[in-house]
Parts: sequence; structure tokens; C-alpha cells
Amino acid sequence: MINAGIVGVTGYAGEELIQILLKHPQVRITNLSAKIDKPLPIGQIFPKFFGRLELVCSLPDIKKIIASCDLVFLALPHTVSMGLVPKLLKAGKKVIDLSADYRLKNTAVYEKFYKVAHKDKVNLKKAVYGLPELWRAKIKGAQLLANPGCYPTAAILGLAPLVALELADFSSVIIDAKSGVTGAGRKAAEAMLFAEVNEDFKAYKINIHQHSPEINQELSSLAGENLKVIFVPHLLPLSRGILETIYVKRVKGAKLKAKNLHQMYKKFYQREPFIRIRREGEFPRLKDVVGTNFCDIGIAEFSESLIIVSAIDNLLKGASGQAVQNMNIMYKFPETMGLL
Amino acid sequence: MINAGIVGVTGYAGEELIQILLKHPQVRITNLSAKIDKPLPIGQIFPKFFGRLELVCSLPDIKKIIASCDLVFLALPHTVSMGLVPKLLKAGKKVIDLSADYRLKNTAVYEKFYKVAHKDKVNLKKAVYGLPELWRAKIKGAQLLANPGCYPTAAILGLAPLVALELADFSSVIIDAKSGVTGAGRKAAEAMLFAEVNEDFKAYKINIHQHSPEINQELSSLAGENLKVIFVPHLLPLSRGILETIYVKRVKGAKLKAKNLHQMYKKFYQREPFIRIRREGEFPRLKDVVGTNFCDIGIAEFSESLIIVSAIDNLLKGASGQAVQNMNIMYKFPETMGLL
Amino acid sequence: MINAGIVGVTGYAGEELIQILLKHPQVRITNLSAKIDKPLPIGQIFPKFFGRLELVCSLPDIKKIIASCDLVFLALPHTVSMGLVPKLLKAGKKVIDLSADYRLKNTAVYEKFYKVAHKDKVNLKKAVYGLPELWRAKIKGAQLLANPGCYPTAAILGLAPLVALELADFSSVIIDAKSGVTGAGRKAAEAMLFAEVNEDFKAYKINIHQHSPEINQELSSLAGENLKVIFVPHLLPLSRGILETIYVKRVKGAKLKAKNLHQMYKKFYQREPFIRIRREGEFPRLKDVVGTNFCDIGIAEFSESLIIVSAIDNLLKGASGQAVQNMNIMYKFPETMGLL
Amino acid sequence: MINAGIVGVTGYAGEELIQILLKHPQVRITNLSAKIDKPLPIGQIFPKFFGRLELVCSLPDIKKIIASCDLVFLALPHTVSMGLVPKLLKAGKKVIDLSADYRLKNTAVYEKFYKVAHKDKVNLKKAVYGLPELWRAKIKGAQLLANPGCYPTAAILGLAPLVALELADFSSVIIDAKSGVTGAGRKAAEAMLFAEVNEDFKAYKINIHQHSPEINQELSSLAGENLKVIFVPHLLPLSRGILETIYVKRVKGAKLKAKNLHQMYKKFYQREPFIRIRREGEFPRLKDVVGTNFCDIGIAEFSESLIIVSAIDNLLKGASGQAVQNMNIMYKFPETMGLL
Repeated sequence: MINAGIVGVTGYAGEELIQILLKHPQVRITNLSAKIDKPLPIGQIFPKFFGRLELVCSLPDIKKIIASCDLVFLALPHTVSMGLVPKLLKAGKKVIDLSADYRLKNTAVYEKFYKVAHKDKVNLKKAVYGLPELWRAKIKGAQLLANPGCYPTAAILGLAPLVALELADFSSVIIDAKSGVTGAGRKAAEAMLFAEVNEDFKAYKINIHQHSPEINQELSSLAGENLKVIFVPHLLPLSRGILETIYVKRVKGAKLKAKNLHQMYKKFYQREPFIRIRREGEFPRLKDVVGTNFCDIGIAEFSESLIIVSAIDNLLKGASGQAVQNMNIMYKFPETMGLL
Repeated sequence: MINAGIVGVTGYAGEELIQILLKHPQVRITNLSAKIDKPLPIGQIFPKFFGRLELVCSLPDIKKIIASCDLVFLALPHTVSMGLVPKLLKAGKKVIDLSADYRLKNTAVYEKFYKVAHKDKVNLKKAVYGLPELWRAKIKGAQLLANPGCYPTAAILGLAPLVALELADFSSVIIDAKSGVTGAGRKAAEAMLFAEVNEDFKAYKINIHQHSPEINQELSSLAGENLKVIFVPHLLPLSRGILETIYVKRVKGAKLKAKNLHQMYKKFYQREPFIRIRREGEFPRLKDVVGTNFCDIGIAEFSESLIIVSAIDNLLKGASGQAVQNMNIMYKFPETMGLL
Repeated sequence: MINAGIVGVTGYAGEELIQILLKHPQVRITNLSAKIDKPLPIGQIFPKFFGRLELVCSLPDIKKIIASCDLVFLALPHTVSMGLVPKLLKAGKKVIDLSADYRLKNTAVYEKFYKVAHKDKVNLKKAVYGLPELWRAKIKGAQLLANPGCYPTAAILGLAPLVALELADFSSVIIDAKSGVTGAGRKAAEAMLFAEVNEDFKAYKINIHQHSPEINQELSSLAGENLKVIFVPHLLPLSRGILETIYVKRVKGAKLKAKNLHQMYKKFYQREPFIRIRREGEFPRLKDVVGTNFCDIGIAEFSESLIIVSAIDNLLKGASGQAVQNMNIMYKFPETMGLL
Repeated sequence: MINAGIVGVTGYAGEELIQILLKHPQVRITNLSAKIDKPLPIGQIFPKFFGRLELVCSLPDIKKIIASCDLVFLALPHTVSMGLVPKLLKAGKKVIDLSADYRLKNTAVYEKFYKVAHKDKVNLKKAVYGLPELWRAKIKGAQLLANPGCYPTAAILGLAPLVALELADFSSVIIDAKSGVTGAGRKAAEAMLFAEVNEDFKAYKINIHQHSPEINQELSSLAGENLKVIFVPHLLPLSRGILETIYVKRVKGAKLKAKNLHQMYKKFYQREPFIRIRREGEFPRLKDVVGTNFCDIGIAEFSESLIIVSAIDNLLKGASGQAVQNMNIMYKFPETMGLL
């Protein structure tokens, strides 16, 4: 039984963490904090927790957090996390950071995409990128875990078998990604008002989204060479879920039948509790994964072209669910505990 | 042909006014202004007008507005309108104010509900409440027109025949109102984010909404006695439309069969181009009126209880459509011009 | 540990039952059936259960159901349940029927509203109406449980304290109810197509809905006199949730301050794990209850008028969640097991 | 002034045709028909037309249609149109067919994708594919006009300049298309129920959609060589609108700067009243085009990759709006009449 705190609990990822941890048999939530005008019982901030969790949410008080928690989840906007992490690590706490602050190993790239200098390069080196399907061994020993971004999770899981098996021509990877609005966080912005998003659909940050370098970093690391994908995110008029349609050209000469490619995906992920390779000819829709920690993947081939459809719940496998999966690994709890 | 300006054009009602006036054969839009950081072509603010209207939207410049317009639509938040109206009237312009500033005759009530002192009591007395079905004669001669609120429009039109004909027990009127989100205006607020409103529904400002006194004022004026309705607004997860389910008890002794009540409604509104009394047993749904300037009304009777369903598009009959209908009356254009 | 079957598993309530029972520590799902063209693994019908439940869904085979189940959930359209119940009871099975077949004690009323003769009057007499907050003692011993309708659950729970405490004038109860679309079941009907419901809102079956007599029966039974409410359901453009705004007149002479009424509600439900009386001045929105088995209730008073807002998830407290709550009571499991 | 009939008026395209034609100064609607149980006034089928159009919709009666119409719009499911067209043409009527029956010149392809033999090959040869931006001259003289599909309209308009100017490597065109649900028509199907589509998103008919051959036929005709695109449609949880994100590789050697490509698009479409090339760096969202007959196009370049975003309202430029644009051309009315 561990004591866990959540910093930034008023956002969508923070709210989802409460939801999961309330049912987790090995976790006691002991501290809730956020940027908030005045302390409030969590049951007043989120009436759905009314009567279910008797904690007050206040401004983050680092001493209290250290005193009351073994593990701290940081569900904060990027650049805020790196102000807290050094103190928490120094106090011997484990940290799972859901922001982007410790994901990009190259601080120049971080600064280019997040428009701010990185101020904790020391700990950045120790941070483990928490995609269990690729880095489980490292996650076991992590003190500081960088929880992956939502778009990168679906993209990397969808492409990893092709990269690892060197089946695809990586000069031509196109990721056409579509996400629900909670990916943008709970902050008042005119563009995110109901009447703006409802009955609308659009591409945004075409090929300049901050998740591009994260995808490129991880795929390049897998491929052993420098990859650069085309990444075009779109905003869906719905609350939760990411579906990515990924287009790849087959490596010339490689002669794989559909069945084999499909089987290779199945084999690649055969021990993964949260990856489901869909049956041949079947492709995931958001409904199949929303509310779950699964990443569902469907695969199609048309002569030289491969089409991969990868779907997750952006708040679960794309954020808080994956954070708890990482926690389970770090604490040697069963990996699916509290997540099925 | 008249020249019209719109102040506050970046809001939903302002945007809708452009939409209507672009197709109106007797109106030339000559000035667009709003609270805006820097002047921008309207086609950049609203790309749907790109290539269709070549005007720049700037901060309101009262001299330019006076120089270029015969008529000015004020699509502003309440309390802002009354700062501009005196100057416009003094310059001899006609004004249609879509805000609440000139609707409530009793300034004490205005101050109670809008939390600010009324600072233009002189013009308030001259303002005409622009519900054409009740005050057409006065509207013809108006220089300052107070365009009705969206909830009051549906409520008053639904109840007017009963009040005028003294058929209902007005100690027990209940208006259960449901509105889409554009009623709240285009302002960044966490409560109006897509992910907050989507898949949600709630009552708000139960019996304390600022449209209550407007409904009470108008119905009392019709009834010749002081009425106080129960008014409970709710927020629908959709963009446009108001549907009100209104419950009234019949006056004891009055013996009307359904057919007669229905016929009386039809007779009451027989010359109204924008009121449709639905066939017996038929009730309006939002789809029937959204995108139109109609108010559709259905009527049911169950022994002593009367149930009236009244539906409008909050941005048309509830705001900009009604404003243009009022303009048509003020300028002796055919009343439906540009609205069918 | 009990073995449970679900008949009618392809509907929304059946799907939700799987969802709940998969996590219930005392239940093993042993039989799935539905009106289906050919047997299919449940993971193909609902890919969200792919890899999580290895059962084939076939046409109901009464012998197999009896052989494999201790308890059978019937998530069927009304009139279908009563064809199966006699056989299941005869075989000594416990049955929780989510249809309307065993709710109305008066078969003449049943026939009037459901347009078919009741063909199992014998078992109808034994059936227990499964609203735990009112009938827990009887539920404990039930063999045949009639799970309440969704609208009635929210209405009865919202009104029960007033009825039991004789505070309200029951000649004037108005229930203005709003429901998401899953209440109508998963059957292809043009009126329920996405493009019909989306951006729409309407009242339907005004005061003639088949849930009216169920509400009247239960409230009359509580009041000890014959009550008849006004009940107007509306269709919300969202998937899950019911919110009812209930209007009642206070009994003349009864002088209760807000605080007392509120306290009386709290006292009335003080031991109920799934009823939350919201703080004074606070009212539930759908988001507070959707995804939970709670019924949240808010209360307002305006001189003689009482306004009660009652909200539930129609598929949980309004159907499958309540069914499992009833199962927990019938089997003496902790009442909240699998539901928090 | 012409007399027009609409066959199949109860579908989404038919309904939209009424909406447009009611405001068209040169058209009188004289006949409405559809597959319908019994004749009904159109104001009862679509209450939004109540009081605005006094026509009864009946089963199609070819004699009455011929007697009352100069022009007939066929808003029918594919394979139904070709049963009516021969009779209408023989009677000297003009026909605008919104179905797919006369779009594909190769009947073997038609039969492969529509699963039925083509039974009117004679008229097929005379049919003009009604994309005004490419075939205006032919449309002027057409008696039988095949109105383009919704997906093809957005795809072909987005790609035509590249094809015509031979700038792109057409071995690698990928069209990732997203459409609202009205594209599927108003037919009761479980997969299109509100609760199925809402909060969901999926790819479907991956690279096997019946609009693929239509896109290939038109682009090949433009290119003068046989093109085969990758076409992946997706279903959006919204009512109206198509947005396509199109990926193309630049022809090796061609050295165009962003500015030039953009200018070439502008020049290519400079006289087109319904094509808007968006400003550099700007891309259309659905809101910009829904409710209009515009096709908005945005263009981005990243080294060898070109990304084109093309957006239309599927019921206007993708169906009924384009049909009226074609009618305007056929009758030498101003091309934008009734459409702005």
C-alpha cells in the first residue's frame, strides 16, 4: 500500500487519476493540489467524487507533499513540472510526470517546441520514457518517469513493429491523427468553447505540433537512424479518444502477405496486456477503447502501401491510465491492477 | 436602401446579423466594430465571410459609425450599450439594441439583476420593447428599439394568448426552459468549454435568471396585474435553439375543449408571419425552427392542466432575426424581407 | 461466487451489465444470449470486450441457461421477458428482469400502456419492485425482481421524502424529465439516427409515456392515496443520463424553511449508499452521476413552490447498476460491491 | 422561371433542395415525390416547411412529373435513378441525378462497386459529370447531368491544379477523408444511431469505398494517365461537412516555393465563384463552409511533401448546392443565383 499525491488535480488528467486510484487496491490518495484560488474539498470541485473522497485540494505545498506521499503524479502544464521535480527527487520521492518536461532528451528541441529553456538538465538525463511496451525494464528502476504524450503513444505503438522489423520505408511515414478535445486540457480558451468545436472539425499545427519531435525521437531510437514523420493532428468534436490513420510504404523487395504482417504484429505484442491487434480486416473505432487502457491496432495492405489504424483513450492509455500502468511496474504491482 | 453598422460583431448575434444582412436587398453593411486587439478584415475573423464582405472590423469609433450608418445594431454585452446609445440617438441615428439595457422599465429591477446602476434613464423611457407580435404599432415609430431576450421571446409568445384571454391561473405558471450554448455568448469561460458541456445537461440560475423580470414585466403588462412566473433555465449540449415547456393551470370554471384552445391560439396569431401554431397533437422540436425566424407553438390539455411547448432559434427569433424583423417594421420594408 | 447469465446482451443495458459484472468479485458470467442471426464471440459483437471475456453469444437456449446459471438478468424488450420468466422460476433460478413486464401490479394498466395482454399474472404477484431505497427488505427475499424504469427511478427517489412526510400538495406534481438516447434502446429507427437527434431537442409522449403509471403506482403506494403526476419526457442529444426537474406546491400551512426541507431529505436518505443530497444551493448536473450508480438530488424552495432536481445515469442507477445493486442485496453481498 | 420536381425528397439531399429552391428567384417547385407510405403535405413531413410550401409528397408518378416539371432532380439511392431517367429524357425533360448511377463511365467498375448491373448504358454515354469547375462548357448543353459524389468533389477540387500542372507524383496520393453522417443518407441502420456515432470516430471501407473509382476516373481523365489514389474515409460525429487531408509527393526536380504553389492554385481557380484558396498558412475548418456552397482549400509544403486540406458542406457543394449550381449553368441563370 503506497501513499500517492496528485499535483494539478483540477485538470482532465488529474481528475482521471483520482477516478482510477480510488479503485486501486494498493494506493491511498494522500495529497491533492492545484493552482486554485482557495482550498476546497475535492467533492466540491468535482461533485462526482462527493462522498467518495474526503480530501481538500490546496495550492501545492512541497513540504506537505513530501511528508504525506511516497509517489507524486504531476499532472501539470509543461514547464511547471520541472520546477517541482528536483525537490521531490531530492526528498527521495518517486515522480511520474505527465507533462512534456522530461520526454525530449535534446533540450534544444525542447526549447524550440515549448518556447522555454529547460532548467533541469540533470534530472532529464535520469528520466525514463514510460512506454511500457518498449521500455519496461528501465521503468522498473525509474525514480523519475516521463509519461508519454497522447499522440506519441498511439503513433509509436502503431509503428513500433514495422520499425523494429525494418519492413517500412521510413522516408514516407504519414500520421493523420484525430483527437478529442480533452487532449487540450481544461483551460478557458475561446477556440475550445462548445459552440466553436461542436459540429466542427479541423486540422491544426500541421506538421509543427510539439508531439512531432517526441514521435521522431522514439521511432529514431528504435530504428537506429534519424526518422522524420509527417504528423498532422486534427480536432474531433468529442471529449475523449485518439485515432491515428498511419500510412507507410513497404520497403521495396520485402514480400509479406497480409497474414504475415498481421501475425508479426500479433507476435510482437503477444505478451502485452494492453495492446490488442484486431482481427484481419477489422479496425478499431474509438468506442472500442474509450474508457479502457487498451491500444487497439488494425492493419491493412494495398500493394506497396500499409495502413495502420491505432486507437487509444487519450486520458487513459494516453495519460493517466498509462501513468498508473507505469506505477504498477515501478512498484511491482501486477501491471493491470486497477486498470481492467 | 439603408446603411447599417454592427457594434459587437464578433459575438454570435453579431455574426448572425452579418449572415442575414448580406442577403437583405435593402441593407448595405457599412461599419463593423467590436472589442478587438487590432483591426482585421471580417473575412479573417470569420473565414466563412471570406470573399463575401470586404470590410475591416475595428474598435468602435463613434464618429465613423455616425458618419457611415443610418441604423446601428448593438450586439453588445449588457451595460456596454447604454454608453453608446445617447450619442447615437443625439446624432439622429436609429438604434436596435440586442442587449438587456433598455428592456426593463424599472431601473431598480435592472440594477438588482444586472448588478450595475442604469445610467441612461432618459432614453430608457423612449425605448420600445421590440416584440412585433405585441408592439408592432409602437415599433413603427421607434428610434431606440430594445430587442427582447431569447428566453422571454419564447415564453411571452407561448403565454400571450392565455394571458390576453384570461384563461389561465397565473399564480402557477412554470416555465421549464432549455437553451443551446450560444445563448451565453462567445466568451472564454471554463464552464462553456466543449468537454464541460458535451454529454452534460443541467439546470442553472434556478428561478433567479435575469430573464425572469423581463418575462414578468411583459406578462404583467399584458395581464394588467402583477405576475410572477417560476422560471428554470437549463443548458443543452447543442449550439442553437430554445425550447420551453410551459405548465399552467386553467382558471377554474373555464370550460374549453382542446379544439377551442387550439383555435384561439391560431386566431390570436392568424396574421403573424413568424408564429406557427402546430396542428393538434403536434409539438415543435428544435429542428423545426433552428435556422428560421419562426416561433413554433404546440398546445396540450389534461383536465385542469395546460402544457404549452414553444420553440425558437435563439440567434434568430431570439436575437438577430427578430432585430431584422424590427428593422423591417421601422423602415416599412416588408416584415419578412431577408428572413424567409 | 455465483454464475450469472444475461439474456438480451446486445442492447445497451446488457452491454452495461457485462461491463459491471466483469469487475464484480462475486460473479462469473456464464451465459450470454440475444436475438442474433448467428452465434458470435462477445468480443466480436463488442470489440471493447475483445480479449477480456471469452464467451459466445447465441440465441437464448433455456436449457443451457438453466444448466449454467444461478441468476439470470433479462435485458429484454417488454413482453418478451414474461415468456421466459415462468420457466426460469420453475427451475429455481433467481431472475432480475430489466423490462417493464413485472413492474405494474395492475394488468389493465399494463395492457393499456404496453398494448398487449399480460400473460404471467401468477408470477407478477410475487415480483418485487426493486427500488432498494424503498423496498430493501422485500428485495432480500425476492426470487423475481422487477427492476425499475429509468424515469421512475429518478422521479420516485426525488419525491419519496415529500410523499412520505406529507409535505406536498400532490394534486400538482409536475415532472419535466430529460433523457439521453440510450433510454430508447439499441434498435434501428429513423427517429434515433444521429443526424435526427444531433442538435435537436424535443418533448415526446407528453403525459402519455408508459413510465407515468409506474411513477403513479409507486408514489400512490407511498402516499396511501391515488396520485397522478404530470409527466413530460424530453429527448436530449447525448448518450447517457436522466435529469428531472420536479415542481411541487407545498401543502398550505406547512411552514418549513429551506434548511429543514434539505435536512429532512438528508435524514430520509442518511443510510443510503447511492443517494447524495447535494449541498444547499447546489444542484446536480448529468456529469456528476454519469458513469456512477448515484442518484443526486438538489432542492430549492420559492415561497409555496418546491423545485427538486434529480439526476441519474439511465444505464446504471436507471437500469444495470440498480440491477446489480439488487443482486447484491438478494445474495447478501455488500450492497455497493462492484458499483463504486 | 422554370418548374422543378424533386424525386426522393424525404432524404437529406432532397430536403436541402427544397431549402435552396424555396429562395431561388427563377424556380417554382411543382412536384415532390418519394418512397412514402401515403401522400402527406410536405409541411407535415418536414415541419420546418410548414406554412412555407403547400405541396403534397406522394409516390413518384412519372406522368404527373412529366406534366408538371421542366427539370427533375433525382435525389435517390443509386440503382433507382436509372429506372426513371430514360422516361424523363424521352419526354424531353432535363434531369439532374444526385445518385451515382451516371457518374462512372465504365459500367464494369459500376457493377463492381455498386453490386448491380447498369441498365441504361445508352443514356450513360450522354450524361455529363457535373463538376462546374472542370466541365462548365459541357454542363451548359447537358440534358442529363450526373451530379458528383461528395467525397470526390472535395478530392478532385483539391487535387485538380496539381494534376493539371503535372506537379505531383501521382503514384503516392493519399486522401484521408472525414465526413459527417448525412453523407450516409436518412435510412434506419443500427450503425447510424445517435448512441453509436456520438463520441465515436472510425475509418470505414478502407480503400474500397465506392467513391474511389469516381475520384480515380476524374483525376485520370485530367492527368491523361491511369491514376489510383489511396482513399480512406472516416465517419465524424457531426451532421454536415467533409474535410479531406490530402498528401502528395512533389515530382522530383520540380522546384516550387510555397508562394508559387499557392499562387498557382489561386490562378487556377481565379474565376471560380465557389472556390476559395485560403491565405498562406491558413486552412479551412468545417465551420467555414458548412451552410455554404464553397469549397475552401488550404495548401502546405514540407520539403518534398505537399499537404492539401479541402473542405465542403457535403449536402451543398457535395450534393444539392452543386446540383443547383449545375441547374443555373444549364438554364443560363447567374451561376451563384440562390446560392449566396
